[in-house]
Amino acid sequence: MSKKPLILVTNDDGITANGIKLLTELMSKLGEVVVVAPDSPQSGMGHAITVGNTLRLTNSNEFDGIKSYQCTGTPADCVKLAKHHIFKSKKPDLVVSGINHGSNTSISVIYSGTMSAAIEAAIDNIPAIGFSVCDYAHDADFSHIEEYVIKIAKLVLEKGLPKELALNVNFPKKQEEKIKGIKICRQTRAKWQEEFDCRLDPYGREYFWLTGKFINMDKGEDVDEWAIAHNYVSVVPVQFDLTAHHAISILNNEWDI
Amino acid sequence: MSKKPLILVTNDDGITANGIKLLTELMSKLGEVVVVAPDSPQSGMGHAITVGNTLRLTNSNEFDGIKSYQCTGTPADCVKLAKHHIFKSKKPDLVVSGINHGSNTSISVIYSGTMSAAIEAAIDNIPAIGFSVCDYAHDADFSHIEEYVIKIAKLVLEKGLPKELALNVNFPKKQEEKIKGIKICRQTRAKWQEEFDCRLDPYGREYFWLTGKFINMDKGEDVDEWAIAHNYVSVVPVQFDLTAHHAISILNNEWDI
Repeated sequence: MSKKPLILVTNDDGITANGIKLLTELMSKLGEVVVVAPDSPQSGMGHAITVGNTLRLTNSNEFDGIKSYQCTGTPADCVKLAKHHIFKSKKPDLVVSGINHGSNTSISVIYSGTMSAAIEAAIDNIPAIGFSVCDYAHDADFSHIEEYVIKIAKLVLEKGLPKELALNVNFPKKQEEKIKGIKICRQTRAKWQEEFDCRLDPYGREYFWLTGKFINMDKGEDVDEWAIAHNYVSVVPVQFDLTAHHAISILNNEWDI
Repeated sequence: MSKKPLILVTNDDGITANGIKLLTELMSKLGEVVVVAPDSPQSGMGHAITVGNTLRLTNSNEFDGIKSYQCTGTPADCVKLAKHHIFKSKKPDLVVSGINHGSNTSISVIYSGTMSAAIEAAIDNIPAIGFSVCDYAHDADFSHIEEYVIKIAKLVLEKGLPKELALNVNFPKKQEEKIKGIKICRQTRAKWQEEFDCRLDPYGREYFWLTGKFINMDKGEDVDEWAIAHNYVSVVPVQFDLTAHHAISILNNEWDI
């Protein structure tokens, strides 16, 4: 019989979030799990790493019978510390991040701490998946997604992923109708149009809360927003080569260099 | 005569860095400049935005005769606040970020606060450029790059950029030989292999400094690392669609969904 796969679990909502509890429980059915997660919420951290400051890593008691650690850094820091300090010469067979409380479809992939952990693993060619549910509630009902989390993680463990890729998996909010299935999608062309809630503090000085409106500019039916809106699981294969290859010849032709 | 272009200047090293001083001075030759920059260093912040906390924006006196503001947030926050709170209905003609003290070639684009500001502008379809010099010294000599910063900014102002793109521009460290020219490149396939410097604090508790070794896995001569190593300016057109389009059909074929 083959060895149990080694699975690293992390997230960006912090080690006490319900999402990572469920993800850890589900992954324990598939392999040997180690949890390394931020000790505080890290939403919106993008692909931040801690370069000007120090990091702490301490044992956690959040998960019975599972090796778990909390880290003062970002989700990407967690993956780096896990690889270097905990796994050492062993390499995990899979890195999973989440389950995020809130959508990471479309352009949100770029702001997402959840996905930065998965992408950090992909950079090292470790198959990786970020899971998010389009429901921001702290106590959101995730029961409808369990079979899909297992199915997708199993598929990746069994078949691997194309080189240096991570999967951005989003689930619709729980509805009366059962989830219809899985769609492999491209990232929706959309943006968050920022708005700021400007307030005065008790001393009369201005401060701001960032908010925003999601603007979808994409009418395609092959995109993650379409899948979610139609009660499918969306799976976007994500890469970290940001080169706009199509633009290289345009710039070479237009610029007199 | 046409109106002077409106140029937003920002960075990730903070509003007091030498790089943003020079960039502001150079951009003032090309248009009307507004500076909105972080009040403290934000290196390695990736595409972080401030969602769980408040932001402050205050006037700065760093730049004589130029409207300038410092912000408590990340580079991406600076661009969002500038667009929404300072420019309002006007849209800048160009957003420039830097000049970063240190390289942002290759995979560093993903960790870079400098580039996140430029990408944030590109998401809103504002032409944007991140400038970095491959010299980490605080007092690095930037005199060799001035003509190229002007030249590239002018090209972008005059010819625009393909839709929703930012440029990742890196300059070699000053050498005896003059810079050879500009190369339009793709992002080098490489990674930062993390290392951690583990120390004990005065109370006997472990803490970590993240460090790393750059591992170049790319022998191409069309990449930014090659250009820099051969004393060229590298220009990589950068997009924010992270979809690995080639992998969609692979997953559709391999997965039984």
